[in-house]
Amino acid sequence: MIDDRALDQLFRTARTANGFVDRPVADETLRALYDLARMGPTAANAQPMRVLFLRSAQAKERLRPALSAGNLEKTMAAPVCAIVAFDTRFHEHLPVVFPHNPAAKSWFDGDANATARMTSAFRNGSMQGGYFILAARAVGLDCGPMSGFDNAKLDAAFFPDGRFKSNFLCNLGYIDPSKTFARSPRLSFEEACQVL
Amino acid sequence: MIDDRALDQLFRTARTANGFVDRPVADETLRALYDLARMGPTAANAQPMRVLFLRSAQAKERLRPALSAGNLEKTMAAPVCAIVAFDTRFHEHLPVVFPHNPAAKSWFDGDANATARMTSAFRNGSMQGGYFILAARAVGLDCGPMSGFDNAKLDAAFFPDGRFKSNFLCNLGYIDPSKTFARSPRLSFEEACQVL
Repeated sequence: MIDDRALDQLFRTARTANGFVDRPVADETLRALYDLARMGPTAANAQPMRVLFLRSAQAKERLRPALSAGNLEKTMAAPVCAIVAFDTRFHEHLPVVFPHNPAAKSWFDGDANATARMTSAFRNGSMQGGYFILAARAVGLDCGPMSGFDNAKLDAAFFPDGRFKSNFLCNLGYIDPSKTFARSPRLSFEEACQVL
Repeated sequence: MIDDRALDQLFRTARTANGFVDRPVADETLRALYDLARMGPTAANAQPMRVLFLRSAQAKERLRPALSAGNLEKTMAAPVCAIVAFDTRFHEHLPVVFPHNPAAKSWFDGDANATARMTSAFRNGSMQGGYFILAARAVGLDCGPMSGFDNAKLDAAFFPDGRFKSNFLCNLGYIDPSKTFARSPRLSFEEACQVL
């Protein structure tokens, strides 16, 4: 079993960061985060998640017009803001990443499968977003994930060819606990689950 | 930092189970799984994921007609098959689960917000699906997640009023390593990420 300290760091006492202390995030830390996150399972091992880590002032300025007012200041001040996106043509990698079944690419090819492709990219890219957040915590980072931004504006600025689509943003750094909100309640097992 | 054994169990050496040994999964284990998974962050703390844990033969029989041929036998034989679903009316819980902002429910209310509601339920329900899989591994379970089933048939059988929608299935138990496939390759940092 995994010890209580690890479960606290990943799940139980970890908190969403609304502000970070003045400490940079190293390249090696971002690589360690991704090296863990990529190991989580996805349908047909397709791994549709793509990530842009915005760290430079220039990159942050390109993001600024897409941010909602409530997320603007804290995101511009964060050491890193990750754009967690997905590849709408993830299936082009299947011959390499899913060698078990050479037919897998055909499940997602062409206009007839456009909806299946988008649904799978969004579902599995979001599951990978969950792995991403827990992997960030596992390497000692704190996360501030957000949906409050203009996806179309962001995509026009960062993904102009339309292949990648933004999913959510995640500020990354080392938490300033003075800016953390009180913990909000979670649904109980009885509210969210049933055993049949 | 979290120790290597824990990182292996959660991310690095954990494998998708295609078969399980003959050992039941206790109620306490399913509750421990959910108690961890529910702590992961979601937009406005909305927690749209809902889970039906199918353990009895009767419940499995209701699932059978929705399973694709390749997933049928292993799912019927699994100690538990979890239907990971989401609540399309998750926003009704916001006044309780997101006390910070009493206006939050209005972001998702009514026909005008139907798309925002569905997008948020699918994104955050899938991120919670990622937390669910890692939480299952944290409590010592092995996972066999699947998208190969007929969502409409499943929803008609288990969620006839239309409020909950199935997202993916996840077999749960203790892995039989003799049925595990060879590890498929993961995309490198350079293939999936960029630092700007």
